[in-house]
Amino acid sequence: MEDFIFGRNSVLETLQDGKRSVSKILLMKNSRENTKLSQIIEIAKSRGIIFQFLPKEKFIQYKEYPHQGVIAYVSPVNYISLENFLSKKRNNKKIIITDGVEDPHNMGSIIRTAVCAGFDAIVFPSRRNAVINATVEKSSAGAINHIDLIMVNSLSSTIDKLKNNDFWIIATDMNAKDNYYDIDYCNMNFAIVMGSEKEGVSTTILKKSDYKIKIPMLRKFDSLNVANAASIVIYEAVKQIIQKSGNVV
Amino acid sequence: MEDFIFGRNSVLETLQDGKRSVSKILLMKNSRENTKLSQIIEIAKSRGIIFQFLPKEKFIQYKEYPHQGVIAYVSPVNYISLENFLSKKRNNKKIIITDGVEDPHNMGSIIRTAVCAGFDAIVFPSRRNAVINATVEKSSAGAINHIDLIMVNSLSSTIDKLKNNDFWIIATDMNAKDNYYDIDYCNMNFAIVMGSEKEGVSTTILKKSDYKIKIPMLRKFDSLNVANAASIVIYEAVKQIIQKSGNVV
Repeated sequence: MEDFIFGRNSVLETLQDGKRSVSKILLMKNSRENTKLSQIIEIAKSRGIIFQFLPKEKFIQYKEYPHQGVIAYVSPVNYISLENFLSKKRNNKKIIITDGVEDPHNMGSIIRTAVCAGFDAIVFPSRRNAVINATVEKSSAGAINHIDLIMVNSLSSTIDKLKNNDFWIIATDMNAKDNYYDIDYCNMNFAIVMGSEKEGVSTTILKKSDYKIKIPMLRKFDSLNVANAASIVIYEAVKQIIQKSGNVV
Repeated sequence: MEDFIFGRNSVLETLQDGKRSVSKILLMKNSRENTKLSQIIEIAKSRGIIFQFLPKEKFIQYKEYPHQGVIAYVSPVNYISLENFLSKKRNNKKIIITDGVEDPHNMGSIIRTAVCAGFDAIVFPSRRNAVINATVEKSSAGAINHIDLIMVNSLSSTIDKLKNNDFWIIATDMNAKDNYYDIDYCNMNFAIVMGSEKEGVSTTILKKSDYKIKIPMLRKFDSLNVANAASIVIYEAVKQIIQKSGNVV
């Protein structure tokens, strides 16, 4: 189900912050032009967002909203607070933390795998990380609407809170001694931390982690793509959990 | 090491077929203009390829080549024939077959993981599959230059040849009964077949496969991205092989 938002400010802000994807913009014919309206049209054109000029009568269905002649259809984003997530009663929560994943394709792809693997949430910092925008949504094949998205200001204090709430923090690190399959993912709450494409997981977060794991490289070569690396670790956890529970999936 | 190619035809063809990435084009100042030269410049502009007009003296180093005032720096592509690959003496060869992977980002990403995992080759059909172009090269982070690339006209007859040469064919299939970790990847030559983004592995190839495997889905959702799926299966094989050999990586 798509949401809609209304009003020149609101639509322009949504277009500018890029956190929600906009599928269609309805504009009232013969509206008074102003800078905001021009900016909305300019952004819509530049991003290939459908926009239609419709007669006044078509806006009757939106009459209880102060729409100023502008309606935009946007995807819903399931942001939830860390506190709300932690208060959900569920055993063995599994989450992914992205610490600076910048490429929106990678971000979307990680979310897609996390959803397929039945993970509970994605935690990401509000800065120096891809925001949830249309590209992320597209790369996730719509998966962003099927998992709890937790945007936080500080990853460091988030990790502290998670640890205080019985989460084990598992950071991926090319220099780790343990391989990703050397640890037991069963019967616990855990968070797998994936680092940025260039720098990996930041030192502060590595220091706070309970486990550091690597994916073995069989040839001397650059490194794995971060979304592929995430998928490998995520599914090792899934496999262990399925095998331990004796469930046949 | 970059290669260079020379001549208007050759450079234009390379630009047009897109199989090798072109990093830079050198053009001689005051060359006689013709359609081919214009096309080269047009394509270079449209793809953002660097091109420079240089004086005649700068071409002295290329004097033994009939360059017609055009030199292009291109990445080497390691195409090898299936026969040559099969004749290489190596135990337990591991290959990936892509059966219709169309997105060049996915293709590059699969090659990157295969290289990291020490796989020996990538086999792909010459039609209905991404060709090895600049996008593939970029998405592979240059990995295309570190693995045998085998382009074949018929995947079906390639599979027959592989089977006749002691390869086991393992096809991924969402409807398979076995999970990807249910089979033993050790002590054998094997080929993992990844299908197209939309259709999966084609029926003909599925019928010829020795194993069909799936990646379990823990939530009812579309499916995994093909490059992520490939990474998960590839690394399950790597893990089994490392653990069986007792090697610590």
